[in-house]
Amino acid sequence: MTVGTLVLLRHGQSEWNEKNLFTGWVDVPLSDTGEREARRGGELLADAGLLPDVLHTSLLRRAISTANLALDVCDRHWIPVRRNWRLNERHYGALQGKDKKQTLATYGEEQFQVWRRSYDTPPPPIDPDDEYAQTGDPRYADLGADLPRTECLSDVLERLLPYWTEAVVPDLKAGRTVLVAAHGNSLRAVVKHLDGVDDETIAGLNIPTGIPLRYDLVESGSDLTPTNPGGTYLDPDAAKDAIAAVANQGR
Amino acid sequence: MTVGTLVLLRHGQSEWNEKNLFTGWVDVPLSDTGEREARRGGELLADAGLLPDVLHTSLLRRAISTANLALDVCDRHWIPVRRNWRLNERHYGALQGKDKKQTLATYGEEQFQVWRRSYDTPPPPIDPDDEYAQTGDPRYADLGADLPRTECLSDVLERLLPYWTEAVVPDLKAGRTVLVAAHGNSLRAVVKHLDGVDDETIAGLNIPTGIPLRYDLVESGSDLTPTNPGGTYLDPDAAKDAIAAVANQGR
Repeated sequence: MTVGTLVLLRHGQSEWNEKNLFTGWVDVPLSDTGEREARRGGELLADAGLLPDVLHTSLLRRAISTANLALDVCDRHWIPVRRNWRLNERHYGALQGKDKKQTLATYGEEQFQVWRRSYDTPPPPIDPDDEYAQTGDPRYADLGADLPRTECLSDVLERLLPYWTEAVVPDLKAGRTVLVAAHGNSLRAVVKHLDGVDDETIAGLNIPTGIPLRYDLVESGSDLTPTNPGGTYLDPDAAKDAIAAVANQGR
Repeated sequence: MTVGTLVLLRHGQSEWNEKNLFTGWVDVPLSDTGEREARRGGELLADAGLLPDVLHTSLLRRAISTANLALDVCDRHWIPVRRNWRLNERHYGALQGKDKKQTLATYGEEQFQVWRRSYDTPPPPIDPDDEYAQTGDPRYADLGADLPRTECLSDVLERLLPYWTEAVVPDLKAGRTVLVAAHGNSLRAVVKHLDGVDDETIAGLNIPTGIPLRYDLVESGSDLTPTNPGGTYLDPDAAKDAIAAVANQGR
């Protein structure tokens, strides 16, 4: 009955997670901790015998490196790869490069939480000349004027869905085990779509880093629905601890 | 006039190069030296402003890791990737896993050189039950009975050409800068094809590890020919030294 298996993997800690800065589309590398998390993710895949047949990543280094490290550990470094900007992290607008604690102190808890977690209110747009804007970045050259200058989660879902439908779903319907290595908010958008999470609830849903989240999917019209709503973490105890830790970011 | 730019990158030292064992299709990782060579390759690309638009690799870890490391250094980790077994190293048959020096001592200089360098005489085929055969390896499942059990360079060229024509040439004709990260013999086959090297001469042609080799190509019927025959190494002095070192392997 199951057609395909989806494995979501959020990248491990980046150098800017470590420094508590808003990152978004800024292309920062994994920290040493993040690299360890990625390898641990690969061990969990190997231990579970959950071996991806194909990889989809964003265009950002922290997701790409996480996938490379995890797949190397579970001996799946050779699988086909597809990368797309539609799997990128949410664009954090003018907050990119800003300190989270400082932003909280300056704007107060309410505004801070709206920017971090409102489903449909984006932060102020980034100045195209800002050092943390992606103006002129060759990987987004095809986007032209559609290059985001800020996004809320609703924007992320909207730009992600075409890729989900045209690239990820066909792999799943072909019966493959599909690894999507991406980001807190792009994966939250996938989960919202798959589990039908409402706009309020999704804001409070944290996906831990480096712990593969498995969905077994069945066909449902032209789309897919999970037989295990909410998915199944390969290390449920670590996931629980990590979810609590993410919720405390910025404090 | 130039349509596309080809960059050939031979993987850096592997753990088995270090141990002086015949490797072929055995999927060994890079040594620490090999990882350094790969990063240096990325620096050479960055310094030359020769930034790949697309990557083609074999299905072997040492080529994949070399590409990952080099592209990360030159900020091109996000480019599209295609992997194919047709870019794999030559299958060394029954020699896979054998010590080169020991093989030389056992079989003598003449036989050793025939197996290493003859254009059209392969080593004895590997036993499918040998621990270093690829029987049952999921990455080659589609090959079925066509899974090589040994190859000479002529076999490598024959199995490489369909991928060259169908996958690499179209990228080059589209004007892209194409990185091919592969192996001593699969790259030797590419060079033989591009430069029209004869069967005798190709045996003596060594491509150094970790030093990008650039070819500027123009259309020539349905194929492409270089405007710089023999290609251009990004670090010619290091290439010269490395070529001499490779020639002395097994001594």
